[in-house]
Amino acid sequence: MEKKTLHIVKVGGHIIDHPDILSGFLNQFASVPGNKILVHGGGKLATRLAAELNIPQLMVDGRRITDKDTLNIVVMVYAGLINKQVVAQLQGKGCGAIGLCGADAGIIRARKRTHASLDFGFVGDVEWIDAPALEEMLERGLSPVIAPITHDGQGQLLNTNADTIAQEMAKALSARFHTVLIYSFEKAGVLLDTEDERSVVPSLNRGTYNTLKETGKIFAGMIPKLDNAFQALEAGVGRVVIGPAEQLPELIAGSIGTSIIP
Amino acid sequence: MEKKTLHIVKVGGHIIDHPDILSGFLNQFASVPGNKILVHGGGKLATRLAAELNIPQLMVDGRRITDKDTLNIVVMVYAGLINKQVVAQLQGKGCGAIGLCGADAGIIRARKRTHASLDFGFVGDVEWIDAPALEEMLERGLSPVIAPITHDGQGQLLNTNADTIAQEMAKALSARFHTVLIYSFEKAGVLLDTEDERSVVPSLNRGTYNTLKETGKIFAGMIPKLDNAFQALEAGVGRVVIGPAEQLPELIAGSIGTSIIP
Repeated sequence: MEKKTLHIVKVGGHIIDHPDILSGFLNQFASVPGNKILVHGGGKLATRLAAELNIPQLMVDGRRITDKDTLNIVVMVYAGLINKQVVAQLQGKGCGAIGLCGADAGIIRARKRTHASLDFGFVGDVEWIDAPALEEMLERGLSPVIAPITHDGQGQLLNTNADTIAQEMAKALSARFHTVLIYSFEKAGVLLDTEDERSVVPSLNRGTYNTLKETGKIFAGMIPKLDNAFQALEAGVGRVVIGPAEQLPELIAGSIGTSIIP
Repeated sequence: MEKKTLHIVKVGGHIIDHPDILSGFLNQFASVPGNKILVHGGGKLATRLAAELNIPQLMVDGRRITDKDTLNIVVMVYAGLINKQVVAQLQGKGCGAIGLCGADAGIIRARKRTHASLDFGFVGDVEWIDAPALEEMLERGLSPVIAPITHDGQGQLLNTNADTIAQEMAKALSARFHTVLIYSFEKAGVLLDTEDERSVVPSLNRGTYNTLKETGKIFAGMIPKLDNAFQALEAGVGRVVIGPAEQLPELIAGSIGTSIIP
């Protein structure tokens, strides 16, 4: 039996931070036919709320050190405000959205990160995804909207990278679906010159990627995303595309952005 | 075919505000066999957060006037922090909890409240419950944990009374289940003397209730809860019990608290 297609769309912080852009993006997401999952990042709201509450924020290599107060903030903002606003908007656009964090129905189990020299606090790395639980929701016509908060199965919530969640979900669901993983953000795709949106690399295989990486031509911030993308392909994901959230249909069609190929 | 029993437990703010009491309550909830739904209130955290953020709060007849900023706070606190902490704890206790607000899977549709002389802001009154969506989750062994936030079906989140949500869910699910509606809180039950926990009325029918109400013997704060309870019974709910959250098994057994009878 041919596998059905499942689109897993990660949408980044910049889009989340701009209500008009977000609304346009959600219109396009609601129109994607068939099985789909939306994984959203956090945006700047958590940082702003922490500042208003005088909770100092520490970032190391772009990762938020998550003490107890900061965990409460990201749970409130990611799994609360952003997730529920996105779900309500999608419902208003006729999409059967259901907002979930990793603790809900136990869909994403994570392990608190340990590091030799640095205490990340309540940061979790994905251990496993409950693929059957997600499959059942998809079969019922629901579209999961995933906040980047997980749990350790012992009662503790954890802050987890949204790109990684999207990748792990795509991998876990590849046995059952032809999964298309879409990293959508504010850029036109993988750029050779970060200042020039026309310098998009239309497709990237492992060999070209390694060469570009070695010669310093890939923007450092893209490297974890691309490493994730290649890992996902190697683990059975059908297709990975990176590109602009504002042109989701074209991105899904593969006519814009950067297609990551084996 | 005999209907299966469904326990719908509302837990109030005081319990939510005390982590030790909440944890004990969740142990007991996790141990309730069979189909169950938990509806939680808000507690004082939203009020505290609003104060820290200098967002003035206005209460009228115990209802929170919900302007845009206040809506964001209750969504963050109720549907975010409290809901996800409760779900993570229940998962840690072996209960297949799934945290939902009314927008998720479109389970609770509400209408923004209009009032001749008072603007309640983003407060919603329940229009309908999607009983089949909840039934499917229960059939899969999931226990919905419901935050008192709903939506209008057009993209707007709304703040909704948790007691009313519990009552409307119990009514909507009574066609399919023998529903037992439990209002659990910090009191021993309906008291004839609010200062004396031993003055619990063990059972209350409509006639006795009306007499007690007319003679001013029922604490004003209990009246909406009791009106809800009688309405629920008249709409097909099997049993309504009001009593202490800290003794949930006895409350379910009907050996303590106040049983509301037709």
